[in-house]
Amino acid sequence: KLSGTGMDAPTPLPTLIRKKRDGERLEDAEIRSFVRGVTEGTVQQGQIGAMLMAIRLRGMDAGETLALTQAMASSGRTMAWPPAWHGLVVDKHSTGGVGDKVSLALAPALAACGCKFWVPMGVDVPGVSLGVTEVSLGVPGVSPCPQMRHILERVGCCIVGQSAELVPADRVLYGLRDVTATVDSLPLITASILSKKAAERLSALVLDVKFGGAALYPTQESARELAQSLVEVGTQLGIRTAALLTRMEQPLGRAVGNALEVLEALQCLGGSGPSDLRHLVTVLGGVLLWQCGMEQGPEQGRERLARALDDGSALGKFEAMLGAQGVPPETARELCAGTPARRRQLLGQAEVCEELPVLQEGWVQQVRALPLARVLHHLGAGRARAGDPVNLRVGAELLVGTGQHLRAGQPWLRLHHEGTLSAQARRELQDALCLAPEPPRDLPPLVAETILPSGSVRDSQ
Amino acid sequence: KLSGTGMDAPTPLPTLIRKKRDGERLEDAEIRSFVRGVTEGTVQQGQIGAMLMAIRLRGMDAGETLALTQAMASSGRTMAWPPAWHGLVVDKHSTGGVGDKVSLALAPALAACGCKFWVPMGVDVPGVSLGVTEVSLGVPGVSPCPQMRHILERVGCCIVGQSAELVPADRVLYGLRDVTATVDSLPLITASILSKKAAERLSALVLDVKFGGAALYPTQESARELAQSLVEVGTQLGIRTAALLTRMEQPLGRAVGNALEVLEALQCLGGSGPSDLRHLVTVLGGVLLWQCGMEQGPEQGRERLARALDDGSALGKFEAMLGAQGVPPETARELCAGTPARRRQLLGQAEVCEELPVLQEGWVQQVRALPLARVLHHLGAGRARAGDPVNLRVGAELLVGTGQHLRAGQPWLRLHHEGTLSAQARRELQDALCLAPEPPRDLPPLVAETILPSGSVRDSQ
Repeated sequence: KLSGTGMDAPTPLPTLIRKKRDGERLEDAEIRSFVRGVTEGTVQQGQIGAMLMAIRLRGMDAGETLALTQAMASSGRTMAWPPAWHGLVVDKHSTGGVGDKVSLALAPALAACGCKFWVPMGVDVPGVSLGVTEVSLGVPGVSPCPQMRHILERVGCCIVGQSAELVPADRVLYGLRDVTATVDSLPLITASILSKKAAERLSALVLDVKFGGAALYPTQESARELAQSLVEVGTQLGIRTAALLTRMEQPLGRAVGNALEVLEALQCLGGSGPSDLRHLVTVLGGVLLWQCGMEQGPEQGRERLARALDDGSALGKFEAMLGAQGVPPETARELCAGTPARRRQLLGQAEVCEELPVLQEGWVQQVRALPLARVLHHLGAGRARAGDPVNLRVGAELLVGTGQHLRAGQPWLRLHHEGTLSAQARRELQDALCLAPEPPRDLPPLVAETILPSGSVRDSQ
Repeated sequence: KLSGTGMDAPTPLPTLIRKKRDGERLEDAEIRSFVRGVTEGTVQQGQIGAMLMAIRLRGMDAGETLALTQAMASSGRTMAWPPAWHGLVVDKHSTGGVGDKVSLALAPALAACGCKFWVPMGVDVPGVSLGVTEVSLGVPGVSPCPQMRHILERVGCCIVGQSAELVPADRVLYGLRDVTATVDSLPLITASILSKKAAERLSALVLDVKFGGAALYPTQESARELAQSLVEVGTQLGIRTAALLTRMEQPLGRAVGNALEVLEALQCLGGSGPSDLRHLVTVLGGVLLWQCGMEQGPEQGRERLARALDDGSALGKFEAMLGAQGVPPETARELCAGTPARRRQLLGQAEVCEELPVLQEGWVQQVRALPLARVLHHLGAGRARAGDPVNLRVGAELLVGTGQHLRAGQPWLRLHHEGTLSAQARRELQDALCLAPEPPRDLPPLVAETILPSGSVRDSQ
């Protein structure tokens, strides 16, 4: 017999998988060849699954991660911007948190400062904030080009739909990672996030990496690891990249759920709204203005962002954006300048509005975001899977804040839904309210840490 | 946003992959559910690839391997035998070596001793020995049932075709392992080999695990690891399992290539032929006779096998098998009892018969099997991939033996091929002949070690 004598020349891909399986480093050309095969469909799904698991278990160094990111970035179309926009095309990326409507407020505020910033519509991500404009207001996300470029030129911000042409390799890998238990791989997360940013030809990027009980990363250390990987690889891609590590235990702001979050974003854009939301918007935007060289430092950037929120220019940009995306001028006007009641009417209201009472006296320590999100999800506010419909009107408003003293019987949560609340859901919601017998000490700050490229001196730029 | 809050109930399979990824033990029910999904096609190929890689990198304990083997064994049809055959249905499995025609000689010899033994046709394995009966003699492998049962009843041995109904899960996994660099996983190899044996309802099994320069396993230690895994799991499956660790540096016997190997098997069946082939056939068969309880010990078994080869009963069984499988009686008769020249004529001869001369004087240390197999493979004797045609007539005869003194110019290899031999191939062949300036010391024995179930006392059975 001639079997088992290894005479067949090994096909390249199994050899690449074997290298990674054995913990060896993959060369740039090898990574490009793998990504090309993934994009062109010549690599078998089983091979992709095996390679993803080998990467998950053996890791990749920064050089391999950079090569993977670049190969994925060039797997499809890349964007191109007018020379005059050089340094102005910016983005903020968050790892996802409950009540995170930062992008919707940040986009017009940065546009008011002269930047170009677009918000992707949450088509593939179970989420609430962005679909609202699509449905409630009849604003479809614009297609990436040339309409997007036109609105960015005229207004500076827009809401865009998903493009199938951008980073097709990521769509394949992302879809498989989910079902192969390879989501939580540092190099794979880094490449997935940054390949899109590279294909979008950003000038600057700020990352909001959340940690805590309601975040993807439970600890600050694990969030820092991702942030450092993103900042390092992003910088090597030629994008001015920084990251903030922010706490995610309770919802950001007071509103959770699509329409309610848009309302809160409008408050923030008008200079009011919850202080934690305003803080995060201005700090993240401030870092971007500093990275762009538009301000001397992040603190000056933060102040400039705050002025844009306070002087009406940010809200004006939001109105202009809605107009440019096809919302009737009168509707856009009323949404931005109308009374809270008129705004609610425009965004749509759920059938039932129900307030939950405080069960026993105490001081608010925190409201845990995760059980709140879970219940709202079951009530229809989130997607179980991509493509599912979302009920934009379902959501909750927190009526209390950390440190506040509560009496039994006082309402603490206003729930907007369209059916009946089960006893189980009610219990879960009540468990989300953490009370202490005495006033809590100062909570740790929302923004815990800033990660900049190692060795870079950003102040001089 | 509600994203990243982990609210979706995890689908079972990603959870299983995650467990194995994290080095946890899979429960029997979990393994069965994975194998069921593989068999029914509900598991995505990408998920299978990821699971295979996780198993390759994290391993499986003996209990998991047993559960995987059992789940695979029951993924399709299982065989059933008459009660009278109890204890008689035996098999030999080899990890594959150059010139290994043991099964073809062992099957009739064991049948002559009263056992039931069948040889699978080498459809999926690039190999040479077995396809010959299919093509040269017009003997198709019989389908597993009921024809196979009839011939086993009447003769005791047969050559069978591949059954798609047996262990369908293994076909899926085996096909993917090859392209995902997960072939060399101890639990996966064990389950792949033994699931078929379990579905075949064997009474006893002897494994020929080869090690050395021309084997899958380079060292005796690595071969022992597989052998122990196979013996342990096989025994737990209720099969009396033993393994021999045998050296594979030079070809087994003197002939390599389909028709030439059949000729050599016929010699062995007639009580002659190379001593290493006869030794391996009788030792492996002897262990089986002992395991069956037909002989007191392996040595008595070996002697009984030798008698079957010497008294003509083994050759008679071969002839009867050919007859039962549709070969005209006269052809079967001539092949078994004819002159060597007539046998060659019946099996087919290649166009060119070319002898290679010894280039310099010396003593034969060994003839390396791997380069010899590689050249024959390129000349058409082996398959590059399953389904490729094999030239049954291409092969080589070794004209010299280890320890023999050779003069320059003397022929040492007779090559049967149908074209021209390239200078490169000629060089490779010449390099396969290892000569020493003085007579070599005794070579280590062919059978290096016997592996029996730990704690078992086989002599008392």
